[in-house]
Amino acid sequence: MLVKRFDANPLITPTDVCPSRPDYEVVGAFNPGATVYNGETLLLLRVAERPKDKADNEEVAPILDPRTGQLTHFRVAHNQYDLEVPDSRSFIYRGRMYLTSISHLRIARSTDGVHFKIDERPAVFPETEYETFGLEDPRISRIGDEYYITYKVVSRHGICTGLLKTRDFKRFDRQGIIFCPENIDVVLFPEKINGKYYALTRPVPKHIGPFAIWLASSEDAIRWGNHIPLITPREGDFDGGKVGGSCVPIRTDEGWLEIYHGADAEDRYSLAAALLDINDPARVIARAKVPLMQPAAEYETHGFYGNVVFSCGATADAKGKVTIYYGASDEYTAGATTTIEKIMSTMK
Amino acid sequence: MLVKRFDANPLITPTDVCPSRPDYEVVGAFNPGATVYNGETLLLLRVAERPKDKADNEEVAPILDPRTGQLTHFRVAHNQYDLEVPDSRSFIYRGRMYLTSISHLRIARSTDGVHFKIDERPAVFPETEYETFGLEDPRISRIGDEYYITYKVVSRHGICTGLLKTRDFKRFDRQGIIFCPENIDVVLFPEKINGKYYALTRPVPKHIGPFAIWLASSEDAIRWGNHIPLITPREGDFDGGKVGGSCVPIRTDEGWLEIYHGADAEDRYSLAAALLDINDPARVIARAKVPLMQPAAEYETHGFYGNVVFSCGATADAKGKVTIYYGASDEYTAGATTTIEKIMSTMK
Repeated sequence: MLVKRFDANPLITPTDVCPSRPDYEVVGAFNPGATVYNGETLLLLRVAERPKDKADNEEVAPILDPRTGQLTHFRVAHNQYDLEVPDSRSFIYRGRMYLTSISHLRIARSTDGVHFKIDERPAVFPETEYETFGLEDPRISRIGDEYYITYKVVSRHGICTGLLKTRDFKRFDRQGIIFCPENIDVVLFPEKINGKYYALTRPVPKHIGPFAIWLASSEDAIRWGNHIPLITPREGDFDGGKVGGSCVPIRTDEGWLEIYHGADAEDRYSLAAALLDINDPARVIARAKVPLMQPAAEYETHGFYGNVVFSCGATADAKGKVTIYYGASDEYTAGATTTIEKIMSTMK
Repeated sequence: MLVKRFDANPLITPTDVCPSRPDYEVVGAFNPGATVYNGETLLLLRVAERPKDKADNEEVAPILDPRTGQLTHFRVAHNQYDLEVPDSRSFIYRGRMYLTSISHLRIARSTDGVHFKIDERPAVFPETEYETFGLEDPRISRIGDEYYITYKVVSRHGICTGLLKTRDFKRFDRQGIIFCPENIDVVLFPEKINGKYYALTRPVPKHIGPFAIWLASSEDAIRWGNHIPLITPREGDFDGGKVGGSCVPIRTDEGWLEIYHGADAEDRYSLAAALLDINDPARVIARAKVPLMQPAAEYETHGFYGNVVFSCGATADAKGKVTIYYGASDEYTAGATTTIEKIMSTMK
């Protein structure tokens, strides 16, 4: 068995989380970034919520007005000619895509890595004109004494990646847009390599090219360049549809161990491993022959958007034990344990 | 009259250009970057070519094999079930897009700005794995003693932007991919502003967001960040479909004068002006009330892809005379003269 799911799964469900306001309901508490802070496991949850008063015969998009800081509600009745609803996550009206929920980031803490206490209030709430549709899928990289958090920002301007910095998980400083549209699943390496910051990115091409993981480097973590494609989908395989970085790479004796996600042609999301050269992460040493984890449990196959295991963070201890926190069905947070050795075995 | 087209238009046609090999034909000599070098007007043409032996009942994509440096030919017969041909520029086979021609960059020189002598051989030919489908739409920014050339690179990896540097237009040094997929129409400002390089970029979003001009800045012209949206399409207007930077911004007393391109909902490409703050190009001072130039002449309305005027470069003299070089119908190179004053009048 490659991974062992926690018996307590799902660890966090939407009903465990207070909405940010009384007239809202939480529909997802998932895709958390993970780190160890002050001896506790700290998760930065993506909390997706929507107005409770949504009627059955309409779609509603909660949208921030960045001038007032208030959420507004864009409602479209189902009988509108120009409305398309591809799935539960979004709708398209007059050619423009809207999200059916708005996400913010919320802290959850645990002393045992299994039982979490969830903050009553958001840690990072949509604020800028780039965040009007929400903040999603944070990855936490500790670099020196600072925590660098990459996060997906969504607005009418597009889907891109912002950077937050924090030292205490109380004050979060926005560093602007580090990757312009459309680029998601950005993960920073947890240390500089040969004096440079490195990031995995996932450009979303419109016309030509696969949904592949690229590598970029930077002197300051703000300005990025030297983009090169790194890991591409493998047609017909479990990761044949798209791939993207998931967890912050783990330093091992054999190289950087990256747990990435791969979706197949039917958009079923699995987790898998790749190994990158420790001094030159542009060199892929090995890649998963088999997936590390695939949707199997009920909470992974059924939910807001089923058949998804999607991680944004794992913790690793000195003995090689790895705990993967992951979003299940775009609704729940779950966890599973494994070891560096078992992960390595998937690439042999 | 806002612009005066040259009587000699089109200045360069495909038949004026030697193909890179005898079994090829040139189908486009267009979208040139423009600068003044050694007292001459220098154009860096995009030369599109394809194998002569293409049959009427097939599509052919010329593709570089980067290992051998040779061009290969990917042929698909028209009776194939999985073939789509949206227009003359590309086809889609089994869900993947291919280009019907491969472009390289070629120098043309002129002492009068109207009559050009075209080099016999390419200046920059596809070479790397990022350039296998071709090099397109160069913009030449002189910064100090060096010429920085941004260019669209196309391959199975995607459509992105590379940077070349040259001092003599003989040796061109590749600087790698400066904007990852999908990002095109990148134009560098011709000088540093407050110690930083600035660029106009045109992200191509897949899911959310307009085809808008963004601004980015850099310490080294290699790594870019601080992305912000700058100029967006205006629904229903001549630039309501998409906008992108065209010419290298011209320094004027009133600000940076940018000639950009805008396409309407029917993909008819016009040229228009915007004025940016000289010390803070993130501030748009004014924008075109009317287009500067629209497809009207026969060579602009009919050709490889008609109804297009698309510029990648203009020259300006000390008296405020501006010569715009532009691609017409994705086939020809043409020119037109105007003045700073007339361009400014389109924004009042």
